[in-house]
Amino acid sequence: MKPVVIAVAITGSVPRKKDNPAVPITPAEQIVSTRQAYEVGATLVHIHVRNDDETPSSDPERFAAVQAGIAEQCPGMIIQFSTGGRGRDPGQRSSALHLRPDMASLSTGSVNFPTIVYENHTSLVEDMAGKMKEFGIRPEIEIFDLSHLHGARRLADKGLMDEQPHIQFVMGVQNALPAEERLLDILLKEAKHLFPTCTWTAAGIGRHQAKVMDWALNRGADAVR
Amino acid sequence: MKPVVIAVAITGSVPRKKDNPAVPITPAEQIVSTRQAYEVGATLVHIHVRNDDETPSSDPERFAAVQAGIAEQCPGMIIQFSTGGRGRDPGQRSSALHLRPDMASLSTGSVNFPTIVYENHTSLVEDMAGKMKEFGIRPEIEIFDLSHLHGARRLADKGLMDEQPHIQFVMGVQNALPAEERLLDILLKEAKHLFPTCTWTAAGIGRHQAKVMDWALNRGADAVR
Ligand SMILES: [Zn+2]
Ligand SMILES: [Zn+2]
Ligand SMILES: [Zn+2]
Ligand SMILES: [Zn+2]
Repeated sequence: MKPVVIAVAITGSVPRKKDNPAVPITPAEQIVSTRQAYEVGATLVHIHVRNDDETPSSDPERFAAVQAGIAEQCPGMIIQFSTGGRGRDPGQRSSALHLRPDMASLSTGSVNFPTIVYENHTSLVEDMAGKMKEFGIRPEIEIFDLSHLHGARRLADKGLMDEQPHIQFVMGVQNALPAEERLLDILLKEAKHLFPTCTWTAAGIGRHQAKVMDWALNRGADAVR
Repeated sequence: MKPVVIAVAITGSVPRKKDNPAVPITPAEQIVSTRQAYEVGATLVHIHVRNDDETPSSDPERFAAVQAGIAEQCPGMIIQFSTGGRGRDPGQRSSALHLRPDMASLSTGSVNFPTIVYENHTSLVEDMAGKMKEFGIRPEIEIFDLSHLHGARRLADKGLMDEQPHIQFVMGVQNALPAEERLLDILLKEAKHLFPTCTWTAAGIGRHQAKVMDWALNRGADAVR
């Protein structure tokens, strides 16, 4: 079997301490949690930061604190910032990119989510992609629907991204694409059609996580989360 | 070859007289235009109404006027109201359904459009589907992306729609799905998986229209537009 990157998403944007007391909220907690995952093999960390009241934050100082702590505690670990939109001011989603993390997530289309429309206006997507290019950040393209792959393709066609993005298929978000193996095959085939040299991973939300990870590994994914 | 329904979308929500002087705007113009299409074989009409300034309208009186005129001038023609959202107040998109047209369009998910996010909140979709069921209106499900088929499937699972929707794949809207034959195959296969007895059609926007119509006819579509 080829080596696989194990990615850890320590915090996310939704769960709170009341849902799970182990969710790391402060930068100090996030650094400890990442170090624990690093020690057992994780080599990529996906970072959301939170305000003191646990709501999603875009504060560059928080991102900087987590980034510095992980760089010190987890040498060589790939640091990926989230630019994901849930609970964040759209204008602030890219406000920490000047810190030049190794990677950043980038959603390239809009889709229904459990209680909202997850809005990623084309103009915002292009703006974020431009900043990632400027700061030398490799995007992880977040795919919640088929058209989002074509949104990524247009970024490459416009010179806002290179031909080898890292692509993550996100499955099982309520009102978006269900976690079904057949749908992963559709998305993966289309991704390889549009970006023959892309690397990829797939993430199942909540109870779908282990199942989607199995499907991804069976198809030669470059990473799991 | 099996018989095919020829649908005519006389007005749409975007073009103005300045774009094409032949675009019918007033109910009187719409009735004349529909009659012309009817005489040469169209048997289904998809209706958007407009305000006097040509902007999109949801005015039930305008819908009623067009409906009455077409019923008189085009006996037997299937009348379909648009509930499409461009330029319309979301709360008013279903305000003409009490007029009980034969069919109404129903978008079941959100997607990027040329300059906006085409927002179809799940709650709005369910509300519109419920009204269509209440008034005995057959929905034409508008599919702009893969997850929208699953949005339709959830409506059926919730009893808001029956197992035989009429499904239209819309291709070539900028920032949504491109008009590519391979993508039509993906959508059609998934539609038949989720709704084995559905009827279907496909519409290419603008310059893609004739090409998409050919693909649809070659695959045994039940209608063309
Ligand atoms: Zn995230
Ligand atoms: Zn192609
Ligand atoms: Zn329409
Ligand atoms: Zn199935």
